[in-house]
Amino acid sequence: MTDENTATGKPGLSRRGMLGLAGATVGAGLVGVGAGVVLDRTVLGASTHPTDTYPFYGQHQSGITTAAQDRLHFAAFDVAADLDRDGLVELLRDWTVAAARMTQGRPAGKYGPASGPADAPPDDTGEALDLPPGGLTLTIGFGPTLFTDTDGRDRFGIASRRPSALVDLPHFAGDALLDAYVGGDLCVQACSDDPQVAVHAIRNLSRIAFGRASIRWSQLGFGRTSSTTRSQTTPRNLFGFKDGTANIKAEDSSVVADQVWADSGDGAGWMHGGSYLVARKIRMVIETWDRQQLGEQERIIGRDKGEGAPLSGGTEFTEPNFLALAPSGGTKIDPDSHVRLAHPTTNNGAQLLRRGYNFVDGNDELGRLNAGLFFIAFQRDPRKQFIPIQQQLARSDAMNEYLKHVGSAIFAVPPGAREGSYVGAGLFD
Amino acid sequence: MTDENTATGKPGLSRRGMLGLAGATVGAGLVGVGAGVVLDRTVLGASTHPTDTYPFYGQHQSGITTAAQDRLHFAAFDVAADLDRDGLVELLRDWTVAAARMTQGRPAGKYGPASGPADAPPDDTGEALDLPPGGLTLTIGFGPTLFTDTDGRDRFGIASRRPSALVDLPHFAGDALLDAYVGGDLCVQACSDDPQVAVHAIRNLSRIAFGRASIRWSQLGFGRTSSTTRSQTTPRNLFGFKDGTANIKAEDSSVVADQVWADSGDGAGWMHGGSYLVARKIRMVIETWDRQQLGEQERIIGRDKGEGAPLSGGTEFTEPNFLALAPSGGTKIDPDSHVRLAHPTTNNGAQLLRRGYNFVDGNDELGRLNAGLFFIAFQRDPRKQFIPIQQQLARSDAMNEYLKHVGSAIFAVPPGAREGSYVGAGLFD
Repeated sequence: MTDENTATGKPGLSRRGMLGLAGATVGAGLVGVGAGVVLDRTVLGASTHPTDTYPFYGQHQSGITTAAQDRLHFAAFDVAADLDRDGLVELLRDWTVAAARMTQGRPAGKYGPASGPADAPPDDTGEALDLPPGGLTLTIGFGPTLFTDTDGRDRFGIASRRPSALVDLPHFAGDALLDAYVGGDLCVQACSDDPQVAVHAIRNLSRIAFGRASIRWSQLGFGRTSSTTRSQTTPRNLFGFKDGTANIKAEDSSVVADQVWADSGDGAGWMHGGSYLVARKIRMVIETWDRQQLGEQERIIGRDKGEGAPLSGGTEFTEPNFLALAPSGGTKIDPDSHVRLAHPTTNNGAQLLRRGYNFVDGNDELGRLNAGLFFIAFQRDPRKQFIPIQQQLARSDAMNEYLKHVGSAIFAVPPGAREGSYVGAGLFD
Repeated sequence: MTDENTATGKPGLSRRGMLGLAGATVGAGLVGVGAGVVLDRTVLGASTHPTDTYPFYGQHQSGITTAAQDRLHFAAFDVAADLDRDGLVELLRDWTVAAARMTQGRPAGKYGPASGPADAPPDDTGEALDLPPGGLTLTIGFGPTLFTDTDGRDRFGIASRRPSALVDLPHFAGDALLDAYVGGDLCVQACSDDPQVAVHAIRNLSRIAFGRASIRWSQLGFGRTSSTTRSQTTPRNLFGFKDGTANIKAEDSSVVADQVWADSGDGAGWMHGGSYLVARKIRMVIETWDRQQLGEQERIIGRDKGEGAPLSGGTEFTEPNFLALAPSGGTKIDPDSHVRLAHPTTNNGAQLLRRGYNFVDGNDELGRLNAGLFFIAFQRDPRKQFIPIQQQLARSDAMNEYLKHVGSAIFAVPPGAREGSYVGAGLFD
């Protein structure tokens, strides 16, 4: 029966956050000592395995080099037109408190009848009450429009602190973007091995944001398409090929330091230890792909389908040899294959830490599955990494015939918060 | 290097099924001795746990009383305008062969370069190659329009064999159906603990059906909302409440016999051992729900949220006492509560075996999650079970304010096939 936030001295939700939970129909008096039954998931018998929990606070945000979980709910948010700087900071504080709780397997707020008056709704929506967190990570990012909105306004007095690396993504050849899947002032990447836990997190953060920010677009993903640690097997994308064999792995500490984490030298001190997230919703024309013979599919990818070995020979983790010649003439690996055009040696050494997910959003009116890859990549500087790599792929990748980029967004992901502080605090200091 | 279907004498895909795999671009010569590398999932090191595999052949189709798996991909198909009776039978034979393979953790067809000429695509799309089946079940059903199409035509000479229990669902009060989620000539319910396996199955069945049937609508579900065996804990729906506490369990053999399986006495001998599936896509207005105080939510459901016990007292599995009086007057369980109106005692003893799933299909233009329950129920006779129950709920359920039924379909699910035969064979004898 204690208000645990008060009891521990840890920061709780702001009054406005509590109002968000209550929605527009409950107006006042929500702050106060809780009178309700406190039921954490742990109380309800969840069988959380220790390795299923990642810290929320720390040098970096979790969900970047964290071993990729199986499921995703990604949401881009727009802040309300009347939100001011203090309101934005308060929202980030509220999100930090709730995210820290949920990643540890606890409800977004105290569960039960009322931390306020009797007519208040529960602080948590409840659908994850019995579920262990399944490795839940919540990773928060800031889009370009948070710094300067589309009318050029500096709503929050932070335009001068926009990192030079947080560029607007250019148009890429073949882009077929739909407004419904582009941009966003803020983002939250929720990853968990249990989709219900990821959905619960986005839903409750959205609820806390009520009146301050609302979902602009969101995406569920059901199968991770990249491994981010050496202990993970390489999963397959919806082309049926292993994806992420050559991905940056958390164990490659010098590569991670060099290619993933931003530092002060990148022009915005508050981003030191952060990273830049590029999201692309890529629809795959799977029905056409499925009619290609295996050899042609393998030529396009540059790897064999069963094992994932480069066509120059060896096994999955053998480095491709782009100079190896085929007996019939030409190289064994097609110069326009995806593996060659995306390879660091073809991109001045640039790499990406990919964390994408397969998706199926039902089907279109012709009965074709609306399916593809929700691509997510983290990097130190998109100007040197995602953008030039994607420009090269957009020009020449043999795979383009089977792809349609329909969504696109970029976010600056600040470093992790110190306990007691909040995500992005450095931007508002 | 053997064509295993030929080698074992088991039926393989029809020539037309092979053409479906090849799509419209490859025309001839696909039947023959395979020349490719045969790679089954087992060869690729899948770690299938024995309990993860359910039989495809048998008295009943799996996926009904089978312990509800965690994930769903449901697809309704329409058959092509020019498909004739022989073509329909051939499609069902092809689906049976491929479904039997996939449920046992094998690819839809032989994987590798060509069971036919060199320009043939792989027989399987590959994205589940390394994955154990995760309890995959594939359950096939026939919609009313298969018997008599919307123009009243008896395309397949089976109109006279339409079971009287396969009625067109009536309009229910409050229905807000969208054409995009209604009806279908055929359905396939794919359930697995791994969504990639369920998606792979629907994709490959759709591919095999190329030119003969195409997806009319489909739905992914990420969290089962009912337990169907006593060994399963009761999951929660997106209202945050436990769902399915009083569901029919596989162990209740006399209830299953009485309420789930059709028999010859129901008017169509070929349905003996089958069941009737009703699917309803129910959007939940979760933002409004989330603003209700806990007590009001519990009054609407008739159970407490944390434990799932009826408001008349006890624990989750205590039978509700609808006559128990509250000290303040009236009954402890509201007469319009969902638990009372859906209870067998209020429905002449009628029960349903529910197998629904939570879904989130992104969000709407107002930033609200497009979320809800994809309701699936199996029963012996919808005229005595789903229809009267839903009529009562549609009239009075206190929960209706937070629900919108947007999709609806009914299917006759024939009994299981004998090995060597196909699903629905009895209908065409």
